[in-house]
Amino acid sequence: MNNRIERLQGLLRESGLDAMLVSDPISIFYLTGAKIQPFERMWMLLVFADGRSVLFANKLFVFEDTGLETVWHTDSDDAPSILCSRLEGIRTLGVDRGVQAKYLVPVIRRFPELVLEVSSAVEDLRIVKDPEELDRMRKSSRINDAVIEEAFAQLRIGMTEKDLADIINKGYLAHGSNGFCFGTIVAFGKNAADPHHEPDGTVLEGNSAVLIDMGCYYQDYCSDMTRTRFVGEVSEREKLVYETVLEATEKAKAVIRPGTRFCDIDAAARNHIAAAGFGEYFTHRLGHCIGLGEHEPQDVGPVNTNPVREGMVFSIEPGIYLPGEFGVRIEDLVIVTADGYECLNAAPRDLKSIKL
Amino acid sequence: MNNRIERLQGLLRESGLDAMLVSDPISIFYLTGAKIQPFERMWMLLVFADGRSVLFANKLFVFEDTGLETVWHTDSDDAPSILCSRLEGIRTLGVDRGVQAKYLVPVIRRFPELVLEVSSAVEDLRIVKDPEELDRMRKSSRINDAVIEEAFAQLRIGMTEKDLADIINKGYLAHGSNGFCFGTIVAFGKNAADPHHEPDGTVLEGNSAVLIDMGCYYQDYCSDMTRTRFVGEVSEREKLVYETVLEATEKAKAVIRPGTRFCDIDAAARNHIAAAGFGEYFTHRLGHCIGLGEHEPQDVGPVNTNPVREGMVFSIEPGIYLPGEFGVRIEDLVIVTADGYECLNAAPRDLKSIKL
Repeated sequence: MNNRIERLQGLLRESGLDAMLVSDPISIFYLTGAKIQPFERMWMLLVFADGRSVLFANKLFVFEDTGLETVWHTDSDDAPSILCSRLEGIRTLGVDRGVQAKYLVPVIRRFPELVLEVSSAVEDLRIVKDPEELDRMRKSSRINDAVIEEAFAQLRIGMTEKDLADIINKGYLAHGSNGFCFGTIVAFGKNAADPHHEPDGTVLEGNSAVLIDMGCYYQDYCSDMTRTRFVGEVSEREKLVYETVLEATEKAKAVIRPGTRFCDIDAAARNHIAAAGFGEYFTHRLGHCIGLGEHEPQDVGPVNTNPVREGMVFSIEPGIYLPGEFGVRIEDLVIVTADGYECLNAAPRDLKSIKL
Repeated sequence: MNNRIERLQGLLRESGLDAMLVSDPISIFYLTGAKIQPFERMWMLLVFADGRSVLFANKLFVFEDTGLETVWHTDSDDAPSILCSRLEGIRTLGVDRGVQAKYLVPVIRRFPELVLEVSSAVEDLRIVKDPEELDRMRKSSRINDAVIEEAFAQLRIGMTEKDLADIINKGYLAHGSNGFCFGTIVAFGKNAADPHHEPDGTVLEGNSAVLIDMGCYYQDYCSDMTRTRFVGEVSEREKLVYETVLEATEKAKAVIRPGTRFCDIDAAARNHIAAAGFGEYFTHRLGHCIGLGEHEPQDVGPVNTNPVREGMVFSIEPGIYLPGEFGVRIEDLVIVTADGYECLNAAPRDLKSIKL
C-alpha cells in the first residue's frame, strides 16, 4: 500500500501538483487498505507530493490502522472546515473527479488563489493491475462463468426476469463470491433492446431473446460478462444480429496488444457492426476498464486515443439494440498481455437456442 | 412534478440565485419523474429561476418524456463542455452538494466570475413530504415490521449473519417491496458494537445480542428500523444498556412537535444516555431524515438548530456500543404531525430474550 502512495507522489511531482485530494472510497482502499462506505460523511485522503499523507475520517468509521495520520471528526463538526485547515500552503491541488461540491465550494471560497485540477493520477495507477490483482480478477470471472451456466440451466417458461436475477445473485454467494458488483441485468425479449434494463416482472415466453449481464465481487475484485441466448426458435433476423455482434467481439479482440489505442479496438467492432447495417443500433462505447470498481476509467470508446498497456483489464461488449424487437450483447473481460490478450470468460459464445 | 420545479424556482428567486444545477439522481426524479442511475455518465437538471429547465442526458439513458428540454450527449462527447454551453449569462449558480469535481472544475475554469453556492433548495423541498409520499412511507415501514418478525422467527443457533440478512432481503421481495434500500445490517454479539457492521460469516451462538438494522423500498420510498434482541440469557449489564437505549428513544419522541429544534430532540436522548454513564458510547447523531433516499438531509444531531416541521420524516436511533462486548440500537421512523408525531414502526421494542 505504501508503495502505491509513493508511486502516486511520483505522479504528482511529475504533473506539478503540490498535493492531491482523493475522495473515491475505492481509491482510498487501493492506496491505504482502509475500506469504508462513508455515505454522506467525510472520508478523504490528502496525499502531499512531498510529505506525509493525511486521512480524514468520521469517528463513526471502523477500520484497521493504516499507519497514516488520521484527522478525526464527528457528526457535530463542520467537516469542510476541518478539511480546509489542512490545505494551507498548497498552491496546486489535484482532486479526483468525484470530489463533491459540498467540499470543493468551501475550499474555493477559503483559498481563492488555489489552482485546482481534476487529476487522474490515482486512476492511472489503478488501471494497470499487479499479478495479485489479476489472480483475483480471474477467479471473479471464473465464478461468473459458473453462475451464468447454472442460471441458464434453471430457465423456465413462465419465470420472471426478477426470478432469474435472484437465482444468479444467490448463486454468487454459493460460489464464494461476496455478491453482485452491479445490479444483475436480465432482459427477456423486447426488454433486451434497452441496454440497461432492470429486471422486472416480465415473464419468459417461448421464442424470446434472454440477455444476462452480470458480475460479482471476489476478494474486492469485479467480474462482468454478458451472454444473449434464445429460447425456442431463432429467426433469421436474430441470427444475423447475433452473428454480427459475435464477429464484432472477435474483430475487437484481434487487435488487442500493448500499444493499440482504445479507440482502435472500439473501431474494430464498431466498423464491423456499421458495415452490416446496424451502426445506429450500437449506441454505447465498446467497453470500460474494471478492477476494484465495476466501471473504472478508461473507456474503450471512439474518442479515447490512449494506448492500452500490459496489465490493463477491460470489457469488450458490443451490442445491437432494436427497439420494439430485441437486443443482443456479448461481453467478455480481457487482460492485455505482453503480446495480445487473455480472455477471462469461458462461457460459450456460439449462438444457442434453448428448448424448454 | 411541474409544481415542484415551480416551487424550486421560487426558492431560487428568494435566495438570489439565477439558476441551480441538480445532480442528485433522486432529486432529479423528485423534480421531473425521470429515474436514471447514471453511474459515471452525465445526468443533470439545470433549473433557471426565470426560464425553462434543461435536462442533460446521455443517449444511452431510457426514460419517459418529462416535458422538459433535453440536451443529449453520447459517450464520445465532452460532457462538461456541453454543460458549460448552457451556463452562459448566469451570474449566481446554486449547485447541490453532490455536483462532482469533473463538472465543477471545468465550470470554474470557463466562468471565473461565476458565483457558486452550495444550495439546499431541493433538499428543503424534499424534506417535507406530501400526503401521497407519507402513505408510501407508511407502507414501506409496515413491510419492514412484517419482515423483521419473520427474520427473528427464523433465527437458529449456528446460522450466520449473512444467512439472516439473506432471509430479510428475500422477505422484502415476498412482501411487495422492491428490495432493501441499504445493505441490511445483521450483527451478532461483539459485532453489534460496530454501528455499521456488515453481515459476515459470524455464527450465532447462545447468549448473544442480535442487532438488525434494515430498510426497504416501497414505490421508491424508504423504511429504516433497528431492533436488538437477545438469544438466551440476558446479563444485568445488557439489561441496563437496553433499557437505557429504550428510554432514550422515548425521551426523544416525547419532545417531537412542530417547532422543536432537531438538536433538542437529539439532546433529549443523548442527555439520558449520558446520565446513565454511557455518553461516550453513543457515538453518532440521533437520526437522519429519510424519504426517497435512505439518508436525506437533515440530521437529528447536536448542532442542527433548525426546527422540525409538520410532514418531516426522520429516524430516532440512539445506540450504546461497548467495544469487545456488545451493542444496542433501537430505531424507529417518525412523521412530525400537527401536534406531535406518528411512529411508523410497530415491531415490539420491549426487551426480548429469544430461547433457541
